[in-house]
Order: sequence, then structure tokens, then C-alpha cells
Amino acid sequence: MRHLIADPVVHRPHWREPEDDQLRLECGVVGVWSTDGDEASSVAALGLHALQHRGQEACGIASVKDQRFHTERHQGLVGEAFGGPDLPERLPGSAAIGHTRYSTAGGSFLRNIQPMFADLDQGGIAIAHNGNLTNFKYLHSQLVGEGAIFQSTSDSEVILHLIARSRKAKIVDRFIDAVSRIEGGYALVCLTRTKMIGARDPLGIRPLVLGRLGDTWVLASETCALDTIGATFERDVEHGEIIVIDHEGLRSIKPFPARAARPCLFEYVYFSRPDSIVNGRSVYEVRKAMGRGLAREHAVEADVVVPVPDSGVPAALGYAQESGIPYEMGIIRSHYLGRTFIQPSQGARQKGVRMKHSPNKAVLQGKRVVLIDDSIVRGTTSVKLVRAVRAAGATEVHLRSASPQILFPDFYGIDMPERSQLMAATHTMEQMRETLEVDSLGFLSIDGLYGAMGVGARDNAHPQFTDHYFTGDYPTRLLDREIEEGGRDVTQRQLSLLVSA
Amino acid sequence: MRHLIADPVVHRPHWREPEDDQLRLECGVVGVWSTDGDEASSVAALGLHALQHRGQEACGIASVKDQRFHTERHQGLVGEAFGGPDLPERLPGSAAIGHTRYSTAGGSFLRNIQPMFADLDQGGIAIAHNGNLTNFKYLHSQLVGEGAIFQSTSDSEVILHLIARSRKAKIVDRFIDAVSRIEGGYALVCLTRTKMIGARDPLGIRPLVLGRLGDTWVLASETCALDTIGATFERDVEHGEIIVIDHEGLRSIKPFPARAARPCLFEYVYFSRPDSIVNGRSVYEVRKAMGRGLAREHAVEADVVVPVPDSGVPAALGYAQESGIPYEMGIIRSHYLGRTFIQPSQGARQKGVRMKHSPNKAVLQGKRVVLIDDSIVRGTTSVKLVRAVRAAGATEVHLRSASPQILFPDFYGIDMPERSQLMAATHTMEQMRETLEVDSLGFLSIDGLYGAMGVGARDNAHPQFTDHYFTGDYPTRLLDREIEEGGRDVTQRQLSLLVSA
Amino acid sequence: MRHLIADPVVHRPHWREPEDDQLRLECGVVGVWSTDGDEASSVAALGLHALQHRGQEACGIASVKDQRFHTERHQGLVGEAFGGPDLPERLPGSAAIGHTRYSTAGGSFLRNIQPMFADLDQGGIAIAHNGNLTNFKYLHSQLVGEGAIFQSTSDSEVILHLIARSRKAKIVDRFIDAVSRIEGGYALVCLTRTKMIGARDPLGIRPLVLGRLGDTWVLASETCALDTIGATFERDVEHGEIIVIDHEGLRSIKPFPARAARPCLFEYVYFSRPDSIVNGRSVYEVRKAMGRGLAREHAVEADVVVPVPDSGVPAALGYAQESGIPYEMGIIRSHYLGRTFIQPSQGARQKGVRMKHSPNKAVLQGKRVVLIDDSIVRGTTSVKLVRAVRAAGATEVHLRSASPQILFPDFYGIDMPERSQLMAATHTMEQMRETLEVDSLGFLSIDGLYGAMGVGARDNAHPQFTDHYFTGDYPTRLLDREIEEGGRDVTQRQLSLLVSA
Amino acid sequence: MRHLIADPVVHRPHWREPEDDQLRLECGVVGVWSTDGDEASSVAALGLHALQHRGQEACGIASVKDQRFHTERHQGLVGEAFGGPDLPERLPGSAAIGHTRYSTAGGSFLRNIQPMFADLDQGGIAIAHNGNLTNFKYLHSQLVGEGAIFQSTSDSEVILHLIARSRKAKIVDRFIDAVSRIEGGYALVCLTRTKMIGARDPLGIRPLVLGRLGDTWVLASETCALDTIGATFERDVEHGEIIVIDHEGLRSIKPFPARAARPCLFEYVYFSRPDSIVNGRSVYEVRKAMGRGLAREHAVEADVVVPVPDSGVPAALGYAQESGIPYEMGIIRSHYLGRTFIQPSQGARQKGVRMKHSPNKAVLQGKRVVLIDDSIVRGTTSVKLVRAVRAAGATEVHLRSASPQILFPDFYGIDMPERSQLMAATHTMEQMRETLEVDSLGFLSIDGLYGAMGVGARDNAHPQFTDHYFTGDYPTRLLDREIEEGGRDVTQRQLSLLVSA
Repeated sequence: MRHLIADPVVHRPHWREPEDDQLRLECGVVGVWSTDGDEASSVAALGLHALQHRGQEACGIASVKDQRFHTERHQGLVGEAFGGPDLPERLPGSAAIGHTRYSTAGGSFLRNIQPMFADLDQGGIAIAHNGNLTNFKYLHSQLVGEGAIFQSTSDSEVILHLIARSRKAKIVDRFIDAVSRIEGGYALVCLTRTKMIGARDPLGIRPLVLGRLGDTWVLASETCALDTIGATFERDVEHGEIIVIDHEGLRSIKPFPARAARPCLFEYVYFSRPDSIVNGRSVYEVRKAMGRGLAREHAVEADVVVPVPDSGVPAALGYAQESGIPYEMGIIRSHYLGRTFIQPSQGARQKGVRMKHSPNKAVLQGKRVVLIDDSIVRGTTSVKLVRAVRAAGATEVHLRSASPQILFPDFYGIDMPERSQLMAATHTMEQMRETLEVDSLGFLSIDGLYGAMGVGARDNAHPQFTDHYFTGDYPTRLLDREIEEGGRDVTQRQLSLLVSA
Repeated sequence: MRHLIADPVVHRPHWREPEDDQLRLECGVVGVWSTDGDEASSVAALGLHALQHRGQEACGIASVKDQRFHTERHQGLVGEAFGGPDLPERLPGSAAIGHTRYSTAGGSFLRNIQPMFADLDQGGIAIAHNGNLTNFKYLHSQLVGEGAIFQSTSDSEVILHLIARSRKAKIVDRFIDAVSRIEGGYALVCLTRTKMIGARDPLGIRPLVLGRLGDTWVLASETCALDTIGATFERDVEHGEIIVIDHEGLRSIKPFPARAARPCLFEYVYFSRPDSIVNGRSVYEVRKAMGRGLAREHAVEADVVVPVPDSGVPAALGYAQESGIPYEMGIIRSHYLGRTFIQPSQGARQKGVRMKHSPNKAVLQGKRVVLIDDSIVRGTTSVKLVRAVRAAGATEVHLRSASPQILFPDFYGIDMPERSQLMAATHTMEQMRETLEVDSLGFLSIDGLYGAMGVGARDNAHPQFTDHYFTGDYPTRLLDREIEEGGRDVTQRQLSLLVSA
Repeated sequence: MRHLIADPVVHRPHWREPEDDQLRLECGVVGVWSTDGDEASSVAALGLHALQHRGQEACGIASVKDQRFHTERHQGLVGEAFGGPDLPERLPGSAAIGHTRYSTAGGSFLRNIQPMFADLDQGGIAIAHNGNLTNFKYLHSQLVGEGAIFQSTSDSEVILHLIARSRKAKIVDRFIDAVSRIEGGYALVCLTRTKMIGARDPLGIRPLVLGRLGDTWVLASETCALDTIGATFERDVEHGEIIVIDHEGLRSIKPFPARAARPCLFEYVYFSRPDSIVNGRSVYEVRKAMGRGLAREHAVEADVVVPVPDSGVPAALGYAQESGIPYEMGIIRSHYLGRTFIQPSQGARQKGVRMKHSPNKAVLQGKRVVLIDDSIVRGTTSVKLVRAVRAAGATEVHLRSASPQILFPDFYGIDMPERSQLMAATHTMEQMRETLEVDSLGFLSIDGLYGAMGVGARDNAHPQFTDHYFTGDYPTRLLDREIEEGGRDVTQRQLSLLVSA
Repeated sequence: MRHLIADPVVHRPHWREPEDDQLRLECGVVGVWSTDGDEASSVAALGLHALQHRGQEACGIASVKDQRFHTERHQGLVGEAFGGPDLPERLPGSAAIGHTRYSTAGGSFLRNIQPMFADLDQGGIAIAHNGNLTNFKYLHSQLVGEGAIFQSTSDSEVILHLIARSRKAKIVDRFIDAVSRIEGGYALVCLTRTKMIGARDPLGIRPLVLGRLGDTWVLASETCALDTIGATFERDVEHGEIIVIDHEGLRSIKPFPARAARPCLFEYVYFSRPDSIVNGRSVYEVRKAMGRGLAREHAVEADVVVPVPDSGVPAALGYAQESGIPYEMGIIRSHYLGRTFIQPSQGARQKGVRMKHSPNKAVLQGKRVVLIDDSIVRGTTSVKLVRAVRAAGATEVHLRSASPQILFPDFYGIDMPERSQLMAATHTMEQMRETLEVDSLGFLSIDGLYGAMGVGARDNAHPQFTDHYFTGDYPTRLLDREIEEGGRDVTQRQLSLLVSA
């Protein structure tokens, strides 16, 4: 990019610990549509609160009342921004959409907080987007060439410009025009003066569910938001489906050619909340099944099974139940996050991670420990944890990842490091074991993972899920990447890199 | 408008006292162009500081370094926002433009803080604008119909969209394309990756001057900004002139047909700082000449001449010198502005204005007072002052306005009330005298004002200045107004209203 | 009190959910003493970070360098206030003490943030205090009568005034003078220009441990702070012991007559972190033993054992291991706290609690559930959880409390509701079962709890622990209460109330 | 001092320009007493607003309602802190006192904001204080030795401790006890549960006036506060007088031996607002008389008389009227204060002062200028102004100070630099003229000043006014200074320094 726009706002400190190497999903979305009252924004706020595990650093809500839009976008937690009793006054109306997100690097963070809004000649439209477009740069460049002025660096704004420039008369047709031109993984919730629109990408990579609370329709990234709102789960929005809700009721449109769905496996491995039902499967049960599979694939003699909290808990329970080894809370997680602390120089080197995870000596001392994590990305957190577990007296540490080796970057909304930063992409198994300083190391196999999903094995001809981070098999074309790399096929290039690594 | 977008930012309290009925000019602009160093933003900040009498509620600076743009926009005073020593780091580069403004009503205030920025395909452009377009709504509606998305309600953004959509290849040609379509009064300062552009409307309604500080070129609304920066005054930017400054030096372009200039008289009456030289005339000396003319036109037997500080001071000095009546500071102005105070119910009714102006009993008691103000708008402040002067013991109060009666609204950047709120437009002279509770009342005549400007009398065929607020003679077409009123000629309609009033 | 002083500071929103009926311990303390360097405040900040489960709404650190004191006291989390790299500059010196606390009601909250400081004629003294004095009002009234001016409503300031008014020459003697006059439960950490002093009440009600990090001495409320700092655990400060640390080393003083210790049981039941070793016992292991005892005392046929996270997790693991019923995460806890959300009127009544706890349908549907909580206070949270668990499809809910019925208020630093608000004090067992809407209800017995502590049964003649909340057997005189109630013996009065309830 | 306590609060930027070498008076006070209603704090806020020229960096109000005290203390302007309509709710009651102050250096600024409050055994007392005690350190040291704990470094707190420790039964007697022990210059306003007390030092160094608004009594530092409130001026509080106001009415107590008053001359020279009547004299008229005397003592041939605004305006008018030389606004003062701007390196050296004062070229070019300032302290501002006036084209600059040479520091509440920083104390007249780069230089004589005060000449045996800054004749003993300097007489030492200078 050639420019940086930094609108200084009073920054609240960021809640992310920089040394943390967890993956991040960039967004959660919610939509609420009713025929009267001013509570849509309050319902949306409850939903966003439940979706903060998908992004907790900024949030926004747009509502519409009497054809006027009201928007607020904030840094910080949903409860801080939208928990107050004055919300129906600040954001009145019977329909509202909301968004919660992680920050991205750079000064444009504040401009990229969603929902985004455009004032079209037929009236305004607000949009909230979870996912990532794989032809964003291509479309952005085309639009700028036509004189469009962008106020953010967000791919959501590309969609707004496509809608604004559509020559169709009706807003729904303009929306269809726009989504027909975008590629990638996305779940969209839009609000016009009279309608709420929901849409999911043709492969259903990103999730979106439909719920109901009395006369109120609710769209949300996960069912846990419906539960918090008190809404009943109606059904998943289908892959490639557009849902339009207005005073005449709900209408379903399927503008794309019919294809099989390929939902993202990482929603099960890490992103979704354990109490959510994603594409008809309980995330908690899938994770326990992953742990059971892991126990079968990578058994070991040990005294205790210890999860890396909180994401490793269900897999560790599954591992313990399958193996018969007792499950214990050998690592305590602090919930008082904050900026990284300055490390007093007298102290040991690994103190950073202790701020979040503390070993529980009473459980670990003199024990052979099976340590269960959901996945291993860079490996930097894992090695700190392993050392802390050993320092607490563990005699053996056997590390188990409840998902396969992560080998390829993601382009559908997961904030994943470069390939060169992915431990499994740059180390052999034995190198990893040594680097992680463990007695043994095991990853769940691809088929083990598909088994935990309840589909038997992977159908390599027509894979049932999006799994490129493990396999390199990207479910869509990657236009921006191809242009950047001069037209070479990306997966091939990645695979050749892997071979040479 | 159909929507309201309120991006909540931490609001600093506004510095405007609501009961104040002074006119407001909406902006001051500055531009700084040099070939190296990172001090352009600091120089621009000094210039903005000196221009805050033109708008003190928000300010912004955009700089460019190595073809990257940096922008900050703040609510509050320039010293608060840009006085810090870290400015060259925050806004680096050898070129910068800045803007200071009054707030407008409504939630869109924050989005309208300038400079505004657009990322074109040839690179970014930032714009700072003082003035008002009389065909803003017309152009806005056209652009939205073509799919443009507006992020503000500012007419400056219209200019950006016109530039972005121009089919010309070079940025200067695109800029000329854009200004060829706008109408009204304006002084523009723009910054591209490699150039600074300044422009003034075809009649020179709004002022813009060119200065120099060593190798650095400076553009500013008034010469007082050059003085504060330490730059020498080179010349006025001419009416209808476009100035382009880059590494090849300064180039002047005159894309419009040649016409006589008609600068705005209110710059002399009220807006410009007394130490500025506007269009070659000292504002201080013009104001003193207005006071001398007023003494000749409206002499009275009295003991003291008292200005309404600070704007009435030079005219009062002129009146005193011409009349031989002693000049005294009979009203003390408080410089600790702030929100209006709650008025304790025991207190008298006129306490509001006392927060800003306090009568000086020692000067007023038992005296016949000539009270000099620069102009009379609604009359609400005047009547409070007159009462306060009488309460302090004045035996007679003779009110004199150093400018003619204000009868018509402005559309070129002055925040003027509706006609129905203008005292002189709705009262006869005797009604005004009674309402203002004064013993006598006098306004400088139009020819007295032209005389003070040093041009003899008004040339009614080709008026030398913009003076529609006194005469109804608007210097340009008022397209938005005409469309709104169904095509009727505005001045005619205004005049007919005047007759019936 | 006759007055309210509200010093308005920019308030950060409070992190407590008002509907939450958990008990609160009001403080954690830390002290760091070394001979050189400026890192004592950074080490103290790490320790405070680990103690925020004891109070997370405000924190403060005082350091001393070259005999000058530096203090900062903040609302909000430790990481926010003291996580920055500039801490050694802001709070320099080789010795520091710190404090973290819950807020108390009322406008005096900000003045009560610790450490508190007094400038004595021999030099300053700062104090951090965990606990509560039972003769605070008596001493406060005496001191005010003698002309002392209080700046807070904190009992810590009473100690400062007692030190300031002592006629002894040396600071340690003045400190002993002061603690000889106070009664109740307390752990104190003080800092003078040259010494750090630690003290624990004669019965050791509140905990305090001593650790070491190289040449640096550390005092802290719990061992988890030592672990986070990287210090080794040396020993508990003993009941009634005063520890003085200066450049000559560590000195132990025992000014009180020898008595048996009676540490507070609630440190094990709820307050201390599971990875802490309190008075020689692993909190995690004690809690698991409580769960095992509960399984023996209150067995039931069921399908799953579900903890109320996080405090019920170890007891639930113990219950599951003893009973053989599988342990499952049937309730998911949200870590994104915040203000209570406005409840949209369409929604159900029990939504409040769902913000923190979400039932995991996949685990609960069609199951007979044993729900394990650490204790039951008002019962308001419990009933919401029970309803949520049933709404998620549980066919039976058997509620088990890992501690006995809470019948009496605390006066030693636990923020406990009035007796009239304690469910067990106002309901029979069957009334409780009905109110809580459970199929069966069981509390761990007193002897079961003493058993989990590893001391067999309670020695009623000389009870081994402070347990008045269960038994009414207060370990000290309650002077303020006695004066307030006209001299009647409090326990007797409480017990008679209980009988009549 | 041995310690620094810095309670971090969100700091608003300071409004003082560091390069500014004006004197500062540290405070203004106000008191409002009525029998009912909740508007006392709003009336006090209006009064404080009018007193901000005496200190504008912090302000506070304490009110009492139903024997409960309410206090707020803020950094920043009165209008910001107390201008809101919710003030009667925030600070309810029919009696209130207020304080406005300049900041002092150091971290203790926030703790020193007044009013200060103490909770005595008969009820609370709040105090607001303008002035300075000359035996503060002596009393502070005594009180700390007796065990008093100070929360501020303010001498006002000494008075509170003296009241708290008095053995008298009634609050008024305790107050008399306390003021009997303090020395220096002071105006005090106190509030108890049922009374308002005002007091002025035995010589009346600092001013205090009594006013009335219906049934409401008002105390204030200056009459301009009464005018803003709308109250009538009743009389000055007399030197050494204590006024007690309660439901029985107003009572006057004179506990000190009768002496002649010696009010501070600097109230007339600089501090008081020109529209105030101080000790029966119009400040404006005194300043004009000073200007007339200056014209007689230091006449010069010149073209224009130019004031340094705003404080030099009345003296310049007097000089102009006496000399017949025209008065012109040759220097324009900016009212947009703020932090000092970073000075771009290209610019000239004297730019700092231009931020506040801008020369008006139209008035100065080619002119012989008499420049009138109220006083000359360090001379640093003066030399910048003289250079700016010359740079604007003045051919001669004749500097005139409307007060005598400042030779000695103040200990009664004026924030004056060290003697070594006072220009007149370290330079001969010719050295000053050269350093100030002026063609001629003149100071009003002591007798000229006394003449302007209307008392003929100075009575050297019994001087009518406090004038030590000009004469070295301190009106009271300076106990702290004497102790510090080992008992030597201060004035003597100062005079001997002067001789050697």
C-alpha cells in the first residue's frame, strides 16, 4: 500500500499478548430483524458478547429505525461498548446487525471496524462480514481505477462498492450482483432500510446459522449466540444461500450453481465455542472424539492427562476416557489478560507464558504427563509450556496435538503465520520433538480427524471439508495470490517448497 | 438526509457558548511544501494555531513522506492536538496541509473533520477546504447515482469524488476537471505524493495567500499565519488561480475566463484577524476607517466610546479618534470559555452573556456611552450587553454597528442564521432601537463601508466586493437553492420577503 | 458516616457482574526487597498479576529509592496499570510493595486504593493490607477524637495513624505498638525507607508466604505469586509473626503470646488459586478431596458430573473419580466479562447469568446431572444455573456443594452478605431443595471438610481452623459489633436468630 | 522533601506556556451560604469562573446538604468541571465553597487541589485558601512530630490539622485557635455542617469581599465574582476579621490586636481583574492612573502608545491620554492557548512568544513606539516582544513598566522567581535597557505608584501597602525563611545581596 491513514482515537490497551501464537479468526457476525420495538441492538449486543472468542478487540452495531441508520463502532469488549441500558436510545430500531473482530496490524485498524455503511441512492446499506475474499486486491484495483474512493483497507468495503455500482434497480439484485463477483470464504449479514440479508459463500467455508426468538429473526456465526440471546436454532444458512428477511417474511435465494459444501475444519479444531453446534455437529463432541482418536493413534504409558486450557480441555477428556489415564487440571489459566509484562532481568527466560498459564505442581510433580493441545502452530507457546511442566516436576512429557500438522497458510479469514513460521512445515517429526523438548510427540491423522467428524475417511476426490492448512488442497481459486506470484499455481509452489524444506 | 452515522469518539467538551450569536466562518487552511526534512507538519501546526479564530473546534493535518500519506484529525484546539514535540514522527515528511474548523451540528461532525483523503489509482490526494459550494447537493446527488459512496456530509468530499472520477491522466488535469464543475466560494489546498496545489474560486470570495520561509512554500488563509510561521508574504493567490508547487517550482494556472474579483467584505468586518493583510488591505486599518466613518455618519454627544471586545476594538478606536470622545475598556472579556453554566434561579435573567463579557462599572457609572460592535446579527447578544452596561450605571447607551444591516443569508462558508433570525431583516430601525433598548442606534452605510475599503462608493453595475448579506446581490448562481425552491430566483424571493416583512 | 467525599477520576467500567453472588475476598498483597536495581516494582507487578483472583478492580504499588517513595494507585487490572516497560522509571527502587483489591461500595472507593502512605518524622511508611480489623470503628473514633484526620474509610489508615502516634523511637517498635492494638484477621506488608516488614495476625487467619528470587526477598498472599515471579517458596509467615527485612538480612519477631493457629477454611474452599500451597496444603488436592468426600456423603445415580466452572472444577474431578461417573464440561464459562447487559424484554428472565455461564447441550441433553459448586451463598446463581441446565435437556439435576452450609457472616475480610441473605441461614434443607429446583441437594459435612484438610475431624475444644461461617464459632472478639449491639455477645445473638429462623 | 507521591489521574494538558514569565497568584476562593435549595454549588461555580485569572489549572467545590459533605476536585477550567446542569445533583446543598488555582510543580499537584476536607469528631470541615503561610514548614514539622499524617504538601492542610487538634469544644473557637498560630497572607473560606466562615490575615494582604444575592451570602476574592453571580457588593472583609455565617445570621469576630491594614499592591498592578473594586479602589482606574503617572515620569517623543495585552491595556490608555500620543492595538493577543509548539528549525529564535502575541504591522511600521507593560519580571517575554515589534517595522521602541523594579521575592502567595531570576535585581538600568534592546526604558516610581493609589506618597514609617517586591520591606516575620537561613534576618541579607549585585 502506498499510504497510511491513522485517525487517532483514544486507544484502549490491546488485550492480546504478543507472545501468544494462537491462530485468530477475524470475525463474528450477528443480525436481528423484527417488526417493531427498539431492542434489536440490545439483542445483537447479547449475540456479539457470545461471539467474542471469534474476535474481541473491536465491535460495532448498526441499527435502522424509520429508515434512518444509526451506527457505533468501538475498540474493546462488547460489554464495555454496548452493555449499557441506553443502547435502545443510542441505536434504536427493530433491526440491527453487529460485528466483533480481532485487530489487524497497522494504523488502518480503526477505519476497518465494522459494520460498514454506504448511502446509496435508494437508501443506505450496512454490512458485517466474517471471512476473507481471495480476489480482494483484484477487485479493489479495478474499483479504484473506476474512481471509487476507499475509506478502509477492508474487503467488506469492496462489497459495498460493488453494490453501489450495480446497475440493477432493486437492492437484493444489486447484492446478488456483488456476491457474484467475489470469491473466497464469507458469511455476510446486511441491513437495508427495510430488509436484512444473510449470505454464505458457495462452499459454506465460514458458518452462519438462523434462529428465532418469538417474531424476531436472528442470524449469527454460531449457535452459542442464539443460546445467549435465548433464540431457538432454526437451521444453518446453506452454502451459497442468500436469505432475505423483510415484513413479508423470509425468502431463500440460491444464485450459484449447486455444489457440495466444504465447511472449514478449523471451526471444529479451534475456533467455534465448544457449546456450539456447527453444521449439525456438536463442537464439544467432535473435540472429544478427536481426543479419543488421538489416544488410539498415539497411546503412551503415563500417569496423568493434562489439557492446555481452555481449547485443549475436551480433547484431553476424550483422551483420558479412551486411555483410562486420569484427567487432571495440571495447568491453570489466568483470566486476567493484559499487556505483556516487563520481564525483570533476574527472572528466568520463559516467564512470558506463565502470565497466562501456570503449572499446578501438586498434579505434575513426579508424574508422567500427556499434554494435550488442540493444534501446534509456531510451537513457541508449546515449548514454554513443556518447560514449565517439567520445572514443576514432571518426569516425562508426551505432547499430543488433537489436529494434524499445519503445513499451509489460510486465505479464508484465519490469521495464520507465513509458511516459514509454521513449525510442521519447516521441521521433520524428530526435529519437532527435539525442539519441543518432549519425550514423545503425536498428531491426529487426517483420517482420524475426518473420523472424529463422523464421515469415515477423507474422500480425496471430493473432500468433505475445507482442510488446506493440513493438505494444501485449497477449495477455491486464489486470484490475488496467483496475480502476485505471476500466475503460478499456488498449491504446487507450496508443495514444492515443502519438499525442499 | 436519510441516515445518521455517529462514530463515537471520546468527545471533548465544545468550546462554543450556545447563547453566543456571533457569525462563524467555517474554516482556515494551510499548506507547507519543502524538498526535505520532516518539519512540514510542525510548520503547518503553527499556521493552524494562528488561524483558529476561523474555526477552533477541530483540526487536522495530512503530510506526505516517501509517497506515503499520514493523517491525524482531532477535536479541540490545535495546540492540544499538534503542539507536541513528537509531531515530526507522527506526521513526517517535507510537505503537509492542515485545516481548522468550527463544528457543525449533528452526528457527522467527526467524519467531516478535514483534511479528507482519497486513494486514487495514481496515488493518494488530501484536500483542505475553506468555503462552501453552492451546487453541492446537485453534485452529491449525481455522484451517488453513479455509485459513489460518501463517508462524510462535507462538500470537500464531492471534490475528491470529482477528482477520482475524472478521465484525465494527470492529477493536475483531474483537479482542474473537478474545480470546473464546482460553484461557490472556496479556497482549496491539496497534497499529492509529489505536489501541493492551491486554488481560489473565480471571484476570490474566500482568501488565500502565498508565503515563503527559506526554501519552503506556504499557503494560508491569512497573512497572520505567515507571520506566526515566520514566513514572508509573497502575494495573494489570485481569484480563479490554481497554483501547483513541486520540485520544479511554482506554476500558476488560470483555467477560468477572466473576471473581476469580488472578495468577501465580511473578512474585513469580522472574520480576519486584525493583524492580517487581506487582498492588500490591513484589516485593522479598514476597521478603524469603518469606525471613523461611523463617527461621521452617526455622531452623538457622549462621555465614553466603549468597544464590544475583541472584534469591536479597532472600530471603537477609530470612532474615538474621529469624535474626540475618550476610548475606554468599559466591557471586560473573559478568556476562560467553556460550556454554558447552569443559571441559578435566584439570579437575574441576563447572566448568560456575563460569562463572556463583564461591564466595568468604574468606566460606565454615570456616563453616556457609545457602544461599538462590528455588526448586529440576531441582536440577542447586543441586548444583553446593553442591559449590563445600563445596570453598571450608564445614563445613556448609543449603539453603533461598524457594518450595515445584515439582511440576507450567506452561502459561501459563513454560518449565518436563517433570514427570519436576522434582526435587521425583520425589524424597522425604530423597532430595532426599541428591542435593543438603546437611546440611539446607527449602522455604517454601504457606501461608508466601501469608503473604508478605499474604493470610494459601491459600483452598483460591477460591485467591487461580495456583499449580498447587506444587499441581496449574490455574486454567483445558487443552484442548490434554486432546485430546492423550484427554480425561482432566490434573490427576488428574498427581496419580496423583505418588502412584506 | 456523616460525609461523602467523591473525588471524580475517570472511572473505568467495573468488571463485576452485579447479579453474581460469589463471595469476594478483598485483597492480595505482595512485597519485594532487594539491595539494588530498579526492578522491585516490576517484580511486584508480576506478583499482583497472579493475585487478581483475590481482587481485580484496583491495584497499587509503592516503591522506595534513595529514601524517596513513589506510589501509583489505579482502578482496573494490574496488566493495564503496571504492565508497561516504563515501570522501573515510574516506580524506581530496589524495594516495593503492592496491593490488589475488589471495590467496595460508595464514593470513597478511590481514596481506599492501597498501598497507603504516611510521612512520619523519621521518614515515610507505606502499607498494604489484606484482611479486616474487628476493632476498626473503635480505634477510628478514638483517633479522630485525638485530632487525627482520615483521608480514607479504610482500616489500613487506622494502622498508619497508630504508627504515626506511637511514642517509640524506632519504626519497628512503632509498628509493633500499632499491631498490638488492632484485632481481627490480617496480613500486612509495609515499606519504610530502609526496611520491608511483613506481619500476620495472631491466628494466621489470612495467609502470607515468604519466597526468594536470588538475593531478593518476596512476601505474597499466595505461592502462586511466587511461581509467577519465579521465586522459590521459603516458608509461610507464621501466625502472629512479624518479619523485618533490611540490609542486615531477615529478622523474625513474635510479639504476641503463643497460641495455636486457626487459618481460614474459605481460602481452601474458594479464594486461593488451585495451584497455590496454603499453609502447607495444595489447594487443588484439598478441593479434590472435598469432592471425593462429597461423593461418599452424597452419592447419587447419574450420567455425568458437571462442575460450575472454574471454582467447582477440582471438586467435580474428585467427585467423578470417587463415584466413577464421567466428568464433562457441561457448562462453558465466558471470559469476556463486562457490565451486565440490558435484557431485551422478549427474552426469558434468567438471561443474566448466561452471560457468564452457558450450558453445553451436547453434554446435558437427556442426562442425569450431578452439578458441583464450591459453595452456595445466596443461591441466586445456583437456581439460574439449574434452570439453564434443565433447559438444555437434563432429566435430573443433583446439586452438590463442596462445603457445608454458610450460616454466619464473616468479619475478617470476606465480603459476605447479611445473614438474611444467606440461603442456608434462612431455609430448611427441603426448602432449599425446592427453591433451587433440584432433584436432590447435598452439602459436604464439617467433618468431611476437616477430613479433606487431612486433620481427621474437627476438634471442637480447639478447632484447627477458622470456620465461623459454618459454625458461628468466631475465633476472636468482635469489638465493633459488640459496641454496636450494646455489648451483647454476637455469636449467641446469631445463634438465637438461627434457631428462630 | 523526602518523598514523592504521584497519584496518576488522566492528566489534561496544562494551559500554561512554559516560556511565559508572568507572575502567578496561586488562588481564588468563593463561598456561598443560603438556607435552602441545592444551588449553592452552581452559584459558587459562576464565581469561580470569574476568578480564573487568579488560577485556571485546577478547581474544586465542596457543598453541604443535611450535614453531609460533597466534594469534587478537578484539573482544568471551571466551565469544563462545573458548568454542567447536573451540578445541583452532584454537589447538592444550600452552602458551598470553591477554589481555583494554578498548578505548582511536582507530582503532588493533584493532592493539593482544594477545597481540602477533614472529618472532625464534631463533623466535617472543608477549607479553601488563597495566600501563603510564612510559618508553614515550622508548623508542618511540629505537627508531623506529634503524629499527624499529611496527605498533601499544601499549607491549607496545616490549618485543618490545627483545627482538628484544638482542644476547644466549638468549631469557631477551634478555627480561631488555628488562625492564631498561622502567619503570612491569607484569605480563607471554610464550610462546616452548619456554618460558613471567612477570614482575612491581620494585614489584609490577600483580598476577600462580602456580597449578597437575595438571602444568599457570598464571599469571594474579588468583586468581579459578585458581578458574575449577580450579587451586590456589601463590603470588604476587614484585615484580621473572621466572619461567621449561619442560620442566625452574620457575626464578625476580630481576634487579633488592632493594626493598620497593608493590602498587597500587586493586586492592583497585575492580579485583580480590571473590573474589580479591591479595597475600595477600581483596579482599572488605578491602572490608568499608573499609566498617567508613567507618562509624567517618563515622557518621550513617539507616534503610538502600544499596550502589551491584556494586562498593559489600562496603563497604556492612561499613558496615551496623559501624553496625547495615540493609543493603538499594536500587538494582538491569541486566546487559543495551549502547549508550547515545537519550533521548526528553519524558523527564527523568538517564535515562542509569537504564539501568544502577534505584532500588528499596519500599526507599527515606521513608527516610534511606546510599549507599555504592567511590570517586568525576568524580562524574557519583554525582549521577545521588543524584537517582534522591531521586526514589524518600528523605528524606535520605548519600554515603560507601569510598576517599579521588582527586586525581592514574595512569600504571600505570588509564584515569583528566585531573586537571581529577577531582571531588575541583577542588572543596572543601563544593563536592562541594553538587554531589552530598547531605545529607552522607564519604571513607575514607588511614589508614583502610591500616588496612583490615591494616598500621596509612601509613608516609610508606616507603609500603607504591602510592597516588599519593590522595597524589601516584608510586612511580617518570615519564620520558615529565618530557620532555613540559620536565623539571619532575611531582608538584610537580601539587601546586602542587592548591593553586591
